[in-house]
Amino acid sequence: MSDAGAATRVVVIGGDAAGMSAASVAKRRAGDDVDVVVFERGEFTSYALCGLPYFVAGMVPDADALVARTPEQHRANGIDVRTGHEVRAIDLVAREVEVAAGPAGTVTREPFDRLVIATGSSPVRPPWPGVDASGVSGIHSIPDAVALDALLRDRGARRAVVVGGGYIGLEMVEAFLARGLHVTLVEKLPQPMATLDADMAEHVTRALVTLGVDLRLGVGVEGFEAGDDGWVTAVATEAGPIPADVVVLGLGVRPRVDLARDAGISIGPSGAIATDESMRTLTPEVFAAGDCAESRHRVTGRPVSIALGTHANQQGRVVGENLVGGRATFPGVLGTAMTKVVDTEIARTGCSEREAIDAGFDVVAEITEGRTRAGYYPGVSPAVVKVVAERATGRMLGAQIVGGEGAAKRIDAFAVGVWNEMTVNAFAQVDLGYAPPFATPIDVSLLAARRARG
Amino acid sequence: MSDAGAATRVVVIGGDAAGMSAASVAKRRAGDDVDVVVFERGEFTSYALCGLPYFVAGMVPDADALVARTPEQHRANGIDVRTGHEVRAIDLVAREVEVAAGPAGTVTREPFDRLVIATGSSPVRPPWPGVDASGVSGIHSIPDAVALDALLRDRGARRAVVVGGGYIGLEMVEAFLARGLHVTLVEKLPQPMATLDADMAEHVTRALVTLGVDLRLGVGVEGFEAGDDGWVTAVATEAGPIPADVVVLGLGVRPRVDLARDAGISIGPSGAIATDESMRTLTPEVFAAGDCAESRHRVTGRPVSIALGTHANQQGRVVGENLVGGRATFPGVLGTAMTKVVDTEIARTGCSEREAIDAGFDVVAEITEGRTRAGYYPGVSPAVVKVVAERATGRMLGAQIVGGEGAAKRIDAFAVGVWNEMTVNAFAQVDLGYAPPFATPIDVSLLAARRARG
Repeated sequence: MSDAGAATRVVVIGGDAAGMSAASVAKRRAGDDVDVVVFERGEFTSYALCGLPYFVAGMVPDADALVARTPEQHRANGIDVRTGHEVRAIDLVAREVEVAAGPAGTVTREPFDRLVIATGSSPVRPPWPGVDASGVSGIHSIPDAVALDALLRDRGARRAVVVGGGYIGLEMVEAFLARGLHVTLVEKLPQPMATLDADMAEHVTRALVTLGVDLRLGVGVEGFEAGDDGWVTAVATEAGPIPADVVVLGLGVRPRVDLARDAGISIGPSGAIATDESMRTLTPEVFAAGDCAESRHRVTGRPVSIALGTHANQQGRVVGENLVGGRATFPGVLGTAMTKVVDTEIARTGCSEREAIDAGFDVVAEITEGRTRAGYYPGVSPAVVKVVAERATGRMLGAQIVGGEGAAKRIDAFAVGVWNEMTVNAFAQVDLGYAPPFATPIDVSLLAARRARG
Repeated sequence: MSDAGAATRVVVIGGDAAGMSAASVAKRRAGDDVDVVVFERGEFTSYALCGLPYFVAGMVPDADALVARTPEQHRANGIDVRTGHEVRAIDLVAREVEVAAGPAGTVTREPFDRLVIATGSSPVRPPWPGVDASGVSGIHSIPDAVALDALLRDRGARRAVVVGGGYIGLEMVEAFLARGLHVTLVEKLPQPMATLDADMAEHVTRALVTLGVDLRLGVGVEGFEAGDDGWVTAVATEAGPIPADVVVLGLGVRPRVDLARDAGISIGPSGAIATDESMRTLTPEVFAAGDCAESRHRVTGRPVSIALGTHANQQGRVVGENLVGGRATFPGVLGTAMTKVVDTEIARTGCSEREAIDAGFDVVAEITEGRTRAGYYPGVSPAVVKVVAERATGRMLGAQIVGGEGAAKRIDAFAVGVWNEMTVNAFAQVDLGYAPPFATPIDVSLLAARRARG
């Protein structure tokens, strides 16, 4: 694997879940045959960005709990983690990275035999007037969340505005509600949850209204107003100003690919770094994993950039194996994702109806309103399930779920079904689990597949 | 489908979920072309036996809620439901059934063109001395549950003994605990939940002990002691008497096949009525569905008799289609089943390790202890998952789960995986759903499959 006697030197750019998975697996497999150096800009490793809203909500008392493994723990496993180190450039010819370290920004060049790019993603932050006002923030790092928590505690904020109705947006709505704030959600599209079809998003809309959220759909943000002290006072929108003591932007993320692009590493049509099945980039000896890396969508076959912790973890493992001579493959994604807002659970996998049509499928799409438990069992709640299938073949292309407790994790059975290219007919007869506390005798998932037979 | 002008006459023996599904689907498909008569011994139709323990627990205030559809509702749909009618014999030559009706037991003969046997199952009730004492009952019908509820209310029972540690046994443990009784569970086997491997059943044992259940494993029952008033006072066991004010027998069920056997309809090796893929018996024009009917196990290929409401419903639908010229098939079973006892959820699908070995497989079986939610998310609890795979091929043969809230329904993803004959390697990379309230970034199900790679 390496020249006689010398260990292979692996450099990992980025200490998030993808980067640290790659580092950990490689080290575990190859031991002393590999030196693994991780350069992380921030101070944390293996952090869970998905947990940030729950920290702000006050449900996770200590931000340290969001860190699956600290730099010290990784070092104890033989990984040379260097936090506060920002890679500025990749030199593919010299096989070196240029690293700026510490407050002084001292620049050194570090050699590598193999390189892993795990630079993750950046939150979208449009150049709106006033976007730099105090009290306007994204929620994309542990420091973001800690600052927001402090702001809520110290400044007695009462009116929160969330801009963007996607996963993070809804989770921040829940967080602010949990903190007792009045919450307005502003979304430029006419629906929340753009990854759901409009007919399913309607159920989310209804849930938000029931929760008392001031919902402004189809309303574009134009900027932010601030007081003399520099703190935000309102969100300026097409439909007039909305008073705000605190604003969170949940506008999605973009893959961070500047380093890779500047080095001449190929970027794919999705805007993320192009990779093959082994998570290698088109440049030999360079791998990519996580939000910055492109994946293949298993239903459409298209290259996609979907930022999900599940993909990041799985891709990191594949890279880790392949760094040290393994032959692991990443089999592609379905974009399975889930969240909840208070007691409404939301999940999706595969293609929505709109995505399937965009990809050229002739589809049947049906919505089934079922229940999470036996009708007589306490706590039973609605589970609305949409199944999308190819008209001619009945092949199941995707599913979406909105419902009460226990609804969302049903997406996993659909994910396995779509993964295996099952028809809705076949899926409707799978022997799923039933007991009154958990399902109806024929699970709503099966009823939904049956109805999508066209 | 029928002789010119005359409607096909379908007779259904048994008004449970299987029988009524068959009746309903046939009527819905064929309308006036079919006359459907259902003979039901009792007074209820479409009843949910799975709900009985929750009625006894006091969680379902009204036993009527356990009835998905009443005889009147079925009649409104054009089905001639006759409750209080017991079929005594089937005459295949004359194509008639002999029916005893009402308290007088008036016997008539009723013709059929096509017959559906949905006679269900009978609870196992060994001829132990004293088994007929007052206060000793099974829990296999709505009247059973109503009587038990009345007994608990009227007689102030304080000590309950449950005989049998299977699904119904555990659910009755929960019910008695909910009613505030002291509960003893007696099980002849050295473990509860015989459908789980011993190493997984251990987690159930621990949960029962934590709940304060007086657990007597490996203890055979010898009979029952009663007072002068005829009411039970104790359960006599190999290990001495156990005081009891109320006793429930949860010893499993046997398919009710006497009628079919007496008529010369073939019984399969499992003891249930032999059927083909269309749920036809070996006798033309006679179908069987539900607990009385044999199914093919998809992993072992063997004929099995597994009494589950899920199978009954699906088989009933298949019969309903085929009664009126359809070509539906029942694709076999995995024996997917689940339950819970207070806050411990239990589920299984496919083959246990023992079942797989019995079926001739060389297996890898591994247990993984994971979590139901992100480690930092409130309410996170353990999820212990056992995956059984074929050693040479990695084909996933089955899974078992014991864990906290949200653990059990994970069995569905495994069921779809086993159904599709996925390898554990392939399953471990499926894109399942993640969000901190619902899972760890790589779901415990995936970790468990990965570990079973052998």
